[in-house]
Amino acid sequence: MNILVTGAAGFIGSNLVDYLLGLGHHVTGVDNLSTGKLEFLRQTKCNTCFRLVRADLLLDENWQQHFESQDLVVHLAANADVRFGPNHPAKDLEQNTIVTQRVLEAARLHGVRRIAFSSTGSVYGEATVIPTPEDAPFPIQTSLYGASKLAAEGLIGAYSEAFGMQAFIFRFVSILGERYTHGHVFDFYQQLRRHPNQLRVLGDGTARKSYLYVKDCVRAIMMAVEKSSERVNIYNLGAKEYCRVDDSIGWINETLGLSPRREYSGGDRGWVGDNPFIFLETSRIRALGWQPELSIREGIIKTVEYLRENPWLMGGQ
Amino acid sequence: MNILVTGAAGFIGSNLVDYLLGLGHHVTGVDNLSTGKLEFLRQTKCNTCFRLVRADLLLDENWQQHFESQDLVVHLAANADVRFGPNHPAKDLEQNTIVTQRVLEAARLHGVRRIAFSSTGSVYGEATVIPTPEDAPFPIQTSLYGASKLAAEGLIGAYSEAFGMQAFIFRFVSILGERYTHGHVFDFYQQLRRHPNQLRVLGDGTARKSYLYVKDCVRAIMMAVEKSSERVNIYNLGAKEYCRVDDSIGWINETLGLSPRREYSGGDRGWVGDNPFIFLETSRIRALGWQPELSIREGIIKTVEYLRENPWLMGGQ
Repeated sequence: MNILVTGAAGFIGSNLVDYLLGLGHHVTGVDNLSTGKLEFLRQTKCNTCFRLVRADLLLDENWQQHFESQDLVVHLAANADVRFGPNHPAKDLEQNTIVTQRVLEAARLHGVRRIAFSSTGSVYGEATVIPTPEDAPFPIQTSLYGASKLAAEGLIGAYSEAFGMQAFIFRFVSILGERYTHGHVFDFYQQLRRHPNQLRVLGDGTARKSYLYVKDCVRAIMMAVEKSSERVNIYNLGAKEYCRVDDSIGWINETLGLSPRREYSGGDRGWVGDNPFIFLETSRIRALGWQPELSIREGIIKTVEYLRENPWLMGGQ
Repeated sequence: MNILVTGAAGFIGSNLVDYLLGLGHHVTGVDNLSTGKLEFLRQTKCNTCFRLVRADLLLDENWQQHFESQDLVVHLAANADVRFGPNHPAKDLEQNTIVTQRVLEAARLHGVRRIAFSSTGSVYGEATVIPTPEDAPFPIQTSLYGASKLAAEGLIGAYSEAFGMQAFIFRFVSILGERYTHGHVFDFYQQLRRHPNQLRVLGDGTARKSYLYVKDCVRAIMMAVEKSSERVNIYNLGAKEYCRVDDSIGWINETLGLSPRREYSGGDRGWVGDNPFIFLETSRIRALGWQPELSIREGIIKTVEYLRENPWLMGGQ
């Protein structure tokens, strides 16, 4: 297949590019390199089945012609940090919702029939059913990030209905693994690198979260694209289990051989719009034959090892 | 209270303005007069408790200072026609989603604590539960209009959580009554005015829809604002019953004393993204003590009578 990946130089994007090239697909990556890194695509340098288009999906126009002759667009480009929405209230709308509409419009104009999209478990807000299934009770949004992804999901659904596209929407838990560059493991690792004896923790450590290893994630995406037959196919992607923030800290410490003093900011939420319990029901994607190869613990350990081997990611701090 | 109403010169907006002035509130209306009509606000001409700000919420900036000292913003301004989304795929996003973010931002910057919003039953897509309650299974969007309103709902939820606002979200069925200027009764009336013996009907006439009389609608809005205590309060607004398109045509004919030949375009949908069965569960708003005073039949008759008395609305066609 010819597959275009937006956000191709990002954490999940670059892992997906590697996976797709491994399967023999022709891949066009688009990235503005705002958070993505060329280093993550170094291995594609001599691969004639890959090309990178450096473009900003919000501001530029020079990327749209690359949608021509694509069999599938995987739209991963986004402002991916759920925590800082209130600091710049229009950013999620611009980067996640408006950009998605631009991507859909390019897909429509160039006749792309299939689109896959990285949504988030944050669209469930504070779920009333846990583990949360895809058809959970209609939720109220609690974060600008979740709201912007929900809006993008809605656009994708409406475009599919109006223009006969097929859509694959994935609601991710937090993803971990090689090339991970933001989120709690990154923050904790960075803190411990500077001050190995002390760790500041947002919240009280009891929040329950679920994580998924990035290679399990990209495998699920392509399995769903292959095996789904509805017009709009929505899948939760997550591990079978959840952990507490304190468990996660324990595994990080264990990997690094440290035992820092923990200082909790307190409260059951790490930030405004944080959700103290995220755990998604994943039986729908597992019914396709997929299951994660790594547990949350193994994913966290792999992530810490990756960060330790790649100090350049800490930006020389 | 000081209340700002966006879309104040529109169908629902001008009815709300009348109702609020009748209750003794101070009202600031904002409208770009793109579909709103000054004629609908003629009765406010000498009312010193009302002022109109002529501004475009998407393109202008001159309206934001009027949010200062408002106790409540009722955001009704929108691209309100569900049928033509696919003809201009960015319009709903711009007029309904992006404008809502701009309104929220103005409310935040000027310290407005309460916001009411006109959403739509279209956010339920093709509902799997009918009558559809507010916490129905998480729906897939089927229209650009519904998607744009859902996106706005999400932004409102996230702003409420992040910035401590209180929100009132109303998911309307189609609204009928005085100053109604678009929708199926308008279309049918306009056709019959030109050709009294012939009526072209989109779909096969069996689609089931619910309607609500506009004065019942504005009364519900203010009752909910008064009596709701959650941070984000979502209410379906609709009649207790539904009717078929064919019933509605019968009542229109009855009022006009006509019996035109009906020509059906066929199929169970009138247009792309149309929903063959819309019927909302309204027990939540009724639990506050509200109920509609007019039945669907009475609302349709009142609408036809209004159109007959106001031929200027047909634009001299």
